Amino acid sequence: MSYINFPSKLLEHAVAEFAKLPGIGRKTALRLVLHLLNQPKEDVHLFGSSIIQLRDEIKHCSSCYNISDTEICDICANPKRDHKTICVVESIRDVMSIERTQQYHGIYHVLGGIISPMDGIGPSDLQIEPLIKKVQESSIDEVILALSTTMEGDTTNFYLYKKLQTFEAKITTIARGVSIGDELEYTDEITLGRSITHRTLFDQNLQA
Amino acid sequence: MSYINFPSKLLEHAVAEFAKLPGIGRKTALRLVLHLLNQPKEDVHLFGSSIIQLRDEIKHCSSCYNISDTEICDICANPKRDHKTICVVESIRDVMSIERTQQYHGIYHVLGGIISPMDGIGPSDLQIEPLIKKVQESSIDEVILALSTTMEGDTTNFYLYKKLQTFEAKITTIARGVSIGDELEYTDEITLGRSITHRTLFDQNLQA
Repeated sequence: MSYINFPSKLLEHAVAEFAKLPGIGRKTALRLVLHLLNQPKEDVHLFGSSIIQLRDEIKHCSSCYNISDTEICDICANPKRDHKTICVVESIRDVMSIERTQQYHGIYHVLGGIISPMDGIGPSDLQIEPLIKKVQESSIDEVILALSTTMEGDTTNFYLYKKLQTFEAKITTIARGVSIGDELEYTDEITLGRSITHRTLFDQNLQA
Repeated sequence: MSYINFPSKLLEHAVAEFAKLPGIGRKTALRLVLHLLNQPKEDVHLFGSSIIQLRDEIKHCSSCYNISDTEICDICANPKRDHKTICVVESIRDVMSIERTQQYHGIYHVLGGIISPMDGIGPSDLQIEPLIKKVQESSIDEVILALSTTMEGDTTNFYLYKKLQTFEAKITTIARGVSIGDELEYTDEITLGRSITHRTLFDQNLQA
């Protein structure tokens, strides 16, 4: 975008900070900052301090590495959840997405990323060791790999599979296939191919 | 959007603060907050404090009410600008837009909004009195009304015209017409109609 001549250094600085956020350009950043300028001082203090406080005080569950206000997160601390089934995800956003489906009642393990040599992220940068230790020590029945279907996701899946296959636990991945509501015509061929290869019994769908 | 079950009150609070911003929904707010969580602490402190500092320390130019770090803004303090021509705008964003064109060399007057009875904004909520006082006392040659072409903008234009017509200053409004690069076919009829009524001499365009 064209050069903006700021009437104030403070304004320019605040806009530059907002423009660092993903998906926020300089024009949007300016609009957001000017909006905040029109808000009462207390509201702006609340806004700024809420994010600083979050960053300073956030804890990760010492068992599953999900974000938590307590040492052990609500999911891991819930005795009604199935502690023999672990769903391995990339980030806490995925935990929230799966929780919203209300279809999963086991516990999670948040890797904090996926193996991505291009970005310099190797297995040691992720919470893989604690996962292996947990599977080894807690007689886990099933590990569900729920990572993205990207090259990095597949690499990580394979790495985890190699590390975990020596244990008792069954290793599964979430089903890939045509989205509900999607027309076959518009589904990409890899997804469609997989959905045919991994077809399920019709009466299995009726139960769901 | 569907209900999000937050694993942390701090996270929920920060997301709620972001979601108050215009055009930012809860999903985008969550994405932005999780992005900030992955940044170094110092960066997040810089982000939060930049906006708090802006809100606390921002000044408005005592002459034109533009945002400024100093008592008198750079534009009003510039002796090379034409101090006999005042361009009346709604907000500082409009000042920045007009400055970017590099076509205007007068000074500004920022109203801080437009008259909008529906939102409870009357003339006394805007910087109209200082404008009238300035026109009256400083022997201004021209007042350019550069407000939005909305009903509220037109109302404000008319109100200002009524208040200012008793003085010497010429009162003008910015030209309305077909945007440069636009095809006539896709221009709305009101704009097209105005652009015909207010047609200009062809050689006048050649000079520009």
